[in-house]
Amino acid sequence: MNQPPKILVTNDDGIYAGGIHALYSAMSEIGEAYVVAPDSEKSAVGHAITMADPLRVWQFEKNDTFFGWAVNGTPADCVKLAVKAILQFRPDLIVSGINRGGNTATNVIYSGTVSAATEGTIMGIPSIAFSLTSFKKKDLTFAREIAQKLALTVLEKGLPEGTLLNVNIPPLPKEEIKGIKITRQGKGRYEESFEKRVDPMNRTYYWLGGTKLILDTDEDIDEVAISNQYVSITPLQYDLTDRNLLRSLKEWDLSIE
Amino acid sequence: MNQPPKILVTNDDGIYAGGIHALYSAMSEIGEAYVVAPDSEKSAVGHAITMADPLRVWQFEKNDTFFGWAVNGTPADCVKLAVKAILQFRPDLIVSGINRGGNTATNVIYSGTVSAATEGTIMGIPSIAFSLTSFKKKDLTFAREIAQKLALTVLEKGLPEGTLLNVNIPPLPKEEIKGIKITRQGKGRYEESFEKRVDPMNRTYYWLGGTKLILDTDEDIDEVAISNQYVSITPLQYDLTDRNLLRSLKEWDLSIE
Repeated sequence: MNQPPKILVTNDDGIYAGGIHALYSAMSEIGEAYVVAPDSEKSAVGHAITMADPLRVWQFEKNDTFFGWAVNGTPADCVKLAVKAILQFRPDLIVSGINRGGNTATNVIYSGTVSAATEGTIMGIPSIAFSLTSFKKKDLTFAREIAQKLALTVLEKGLPEGTLLNVNIPPLPKEEIKGIKITRQGKGRYEESFEKRVDPMNRTYYWLGGTKLILDTDEDIDEVAISNQYVSITPLQYDLTDRNLLRSLKEWDLSIE
Repeated sequence: MNQPPKILVTNDDGIYAGGIHALYSAMSEIGEAYVVAPDSEKSAVGHAITMADPLRVWQFEKNDTFFGWAVNGTPADCVKLAVKAILQFRPDLIVSGINRGGNTATNVIYSGTVSAATEGTIMGIPSIAFSLTSFKKKDLTFAREIAQKLALTVLEKGLPEGTLLNVNIPPLPKEEIKGIKITRQGKGRYEESFEKRVDPMNRTYYWLGGTKLILDTDEDIDEVAISNQYVSITPLQYDLTDRNLLRSLKEWDLSIE
């Protein structure tokens, strides 16, 4: 590559989050990095886009220096707006993260971090989502190293049309990591419960809570790889067609009388 | 079935929308129908769930009669809250819609209508999403009939674990419908553009716009079936793993030195 690669950096924890600063610094060492990210936390927004409200953009500074553009939208909004209006060029790579908390198993479908990478993929740009599988640990040294390594690999090899990488990294120092595993999305999910409370105006409200159910044991499942101290890389796509049912559905009697 | 089936009805256009009233009335004729739906329009929210804010519920009346529960949340929130807190029983079926506008091709991943059915499926309850592929036409007669027919079929035959049905219905009278087609999700997507404007306070804002790209021609693709005047039924699942790339990724050199 003659020109340095252009890399768009976004996330769903918001432009203030530590994870995006680590990711930006890792990308700056291998190319020209540009940050376009939500102005506040947008976790569990799924693949939402903002259609009913206008989007606003402002320049966000860190230590009196321009760091990137903040948007009052979702991660998917940020990617669309970055490519089509703010940058006005196509980046060579889009990276999202480093998310605080894992995006494995059924959580993948609620993930704003993954949705940013999905949006990039829909636009035909190679895209990777990065998550650190802990809400508590803050050491991003190893996650930052993995992100840089995978970004370089994808810049060199590309990704097939319609495929993104969902990378989850255990919150461990490098010497405790067993390696990298290519994985499948697990079936684990939350068994939700709601806590019912009454506010000072005597009105009822509910908080979402729940218990995580791990429903897989195969070593090549994303969350199993994580508990076995591996970095998990899951190739994802967004054609949701269930090809198994496709055949048997055709045997249903579905004529219109 | 000795007891009448219990059917949860939700949508993403909100509890005021005509589509959910038509769907409720169709379901009431075949079982006990219960409405739990967003208190306002939640289109293009993707598979968002509300974690940072409390959820509130109130009883919504239509013609001075209780119609259902309105929730200040997303379609996925409504399904979780209905099953775990409001109804406190497991419905036999969850139906979502009838959405104003189609949910075909890449639009599926932005769809709140589909996400409600996905959430039901994650909870292990057979679920169907219904959309009328027009923003203008308001005659729901045929869509209502199809919804009832498919609800009865799914109540009788069930659906495999992890699979939902995404049903799109052309805005045509019954006599112009050619039949029902079992389809795959298409690749069609929007080529987005943003319109830049300046508000009265002289600040810039952006509106999302775009042109629809139809990228498929096969007759068994959802949006092709619709333009050919068929009802489209796509079986969907939420394991996003790209099984093709899984193999080739294993050949990448991804050791950790």
